Amino acid sequence: MTKSRQIVLAARPVGRPTHDTFRLETVELRDPGEGQLLVRNLWMSVDPYMRGRMYDRPSYVPAFQVGKPLEGGAIGQVVCSRNAAFAEGDLVSHSAGWREYAVLDGPGGNAVSGGAVKIDTSLAPAPAYLGVLGMPGLTAYAGLLVHGRPKAGETVFVSAASGAVGSVVGQIAKIQGCYVAGSAGSQEKVDHLKHSLGFDAAFNYKTGDLDAELRKACPKGIDVYFENVGGPQLQAVLTAMNPFGRIAVCGMIAQYNATTPPAGPNNLIYVIPKRLSIRGFVVTDHSDLMPEFTRDMAGWIKSGRLKYQETVHEGIESAPAAFLGLFDGENNGKMLVRLA
Amino acid sequence: MTKSRQIVLAARPVGRPTHDTFRLETVELRDPGEGQLLVRNLWMSVDPYMRGRMYDRPSYVPAFQVGKPLEGGAIGQVVCSRNAAFAEGDLVSHSAGWREYAVLDGPGGNAVSGGAVKIDTSLAPAPAYLGVLGMPGLTAYAGLLVHGRPKAGETVFVSAASGAVGSVVGQIAKIQGCYVAGSAGSQEKVDHLKHSLGFDAAFNYKTGDLDAELRKACPKGIDVYFENVGGPQLQAVLTAMNPFGRIAVCGMIAQYNATTPPAGPNNLIYVIPKRLSIRGFVVTDHSDLMPEFTRDMAGWIKSGRLKYQETVHEGIESAPAAFLGLFDGENNGKMLVRLA
Repeated sequence: MTKSRQIVLAARPVGRPTHDTFRLETVELRDPGEGQLLVRNLWMSVDPYMRGRMYDRPSYVPAFQVGKPLEGGAIGQVVCSRNAAFAEGDLVSHSAGWREYAVLDGPGGNAVSGGAVKIDTSLAPAPAYLGVLGMPGLTAYAGLLVHGRPKAGETVFVSAASGAVGSVVGQIAKIQGCYVAGSAGSQEKVDHLKHSLGFDAAFNYKTGDLDAELRKACPKGIDVYFENVGGPQLQAVLTAMNPFGRIAVCGMIAQYNATTPPAGPNNLIYVIPKRLSIRGFVVTDHSDLMPEFTRDMAGWIKSGRLKYQETVHEGIESAPAAFLGLFDGENNGKMLVRLA
Repeated sequence: MTKSRQIVLAARPVGRPTHDTFRLETVELRDPGEGQLLVRNLWMSVDPYMRGRMYDRPSYVPAFQVGKPLEGGAIGQVVCSRNAAFAEGDLVSHSAGWREYAVLDGPGGNAVSGGAVKIDTSLAPAPAYLGVLGMPGLTAYAGLLVHGRPKAGETVFVSAASGAVGSVVGQIAKIQGCYVAGSAGSQEKVDHLKHSLGFDAAFNYKTGDLDAELRKACPKGIDVYFENVGGPQLQAVLTAMNPFGRIAVCGMIAQYNATTPPAGPNNLIYVIPKRLSIRGFVVTDHSDLMPEFTRDMAGWIKSGRLKYQETVHEGIESAPAAFLGLFDGENNGKMLVRLA
């Protein structure tokens, strides 16, 4: 028996989640059975998509259940293995976050679809497997390359550009030879995009006129838009898109907490004369890209072409604050919680 | 010199066009020069997309100019040829409608992109080349097959289903082995869709709740939506779409006359969990499909698998009324004007 603290969904939030959405409790874990592992979580991830799982509705992932522990990406260390593929001390990526210890089935699955997968810390430090080398990184990689299909010389615009996904999108687009612009929510983030991550242009979406900012940031118009936020930015982008442009829709964080659905863009009709394509995607459909993704990303990290930032909260009791901070843009790059 | 009556754009409409948008005038045409033809127009087409050309803005086709004759699909008979490829009496399809006579360059182009192209009335009567065998037919064919990509057994839903494009979309989808549903603006049209054109389900979008009507008409959800109207139907469709569904956006007639842009669908976010694709298209990008389109359509017409209706106005002076009638759904199938 192992004592573990975990965070459960206390109540389904209406609108913006609060600390009352969460409850910290202590449970006793059964010992791992044949083929199972006991892991001690070192890091856990908080991600905007988790807000969607707090609604009680059918979707591409099951809804969280009230009174049950939340789930999400985590990096743990094996403390007891009854599976020949894992040894004590192994570092694994899995999807039973929001708790200090977890009993996992293994082997099987991968960092995106669940299960325990050993990670290779010679490529990058362990927490990178929750960011650039994990789900957010694959989201950026697959969304941009499969759905955005940028060609060298084209203009790529990404919103929430300093986030875990957006910052990788912009840097991969630069590596593809594109002109890259991004939006973020503070001058500090804008400066980071331009001066550290190599963006050609960036602006603060909270100040100034979006149409004018986009014209200035993307003087040749936009060929590929990587959509993370929705709302007024999407409408301004539709005006700025070039003919035959592609919009890869990853997220619309601006409306995840809306209690009444906000009106859509009033210029969606532009898809016709501009022959635009708008495609939504979900990272779990792209786990087949894991090998080439890991190879490419590890190479770009090693060569210094791809940088990443992490904002780290300490201790499982800080996980709700870390999650809530996503909706205020408190993170620079990946938002993480260090558990041990 | 040939006297010809023609209709010019009298003034750019604000909101819904009226009879004051148009002016009938008589001009004298110069004789055809070397390589040119003089044609007497027998039929002309009025189409919803022409409303877009009345705005003074850049788009995929040039804007109509105030004081200049309107343009659009027409079928004419050669009355004088100074081009070896055409003889007096030949029937040609071209894009200089809205006038009784036209001097055309030839050869070159096709029925969609302009120029004079001989038509083959052994396949279908001449006016069919403005409908099922012309631009609206190719719009349906390319939009459904290239952008909708329906598979046998899937559900295809089309709005404005009794129009020149929608009625062809539904019938081609049936030929592809799909379950087909459509919406139209009267009980008479709904009956025609179900009892004459072979639609599996149809409903009147003006009566009843759109979400409920769609659930009833498409009990397995929608895999392919052929979008002709926009507005509330698009929003209801987004709710009814199945995962990995495709939306081919051909038109949004519901808002062509809007003086302020209407809000977009409030559930566009569904593109993410449902992994939807939304693609706008323009028929002129698909003229390469003309040979296979003509072969397929002529075969389906001959075998009775594809039917079509025409609503015919008489005389060039009735062309404005025919055009305006499009926005009231006065047409059953293709709206045409017989000029001679």
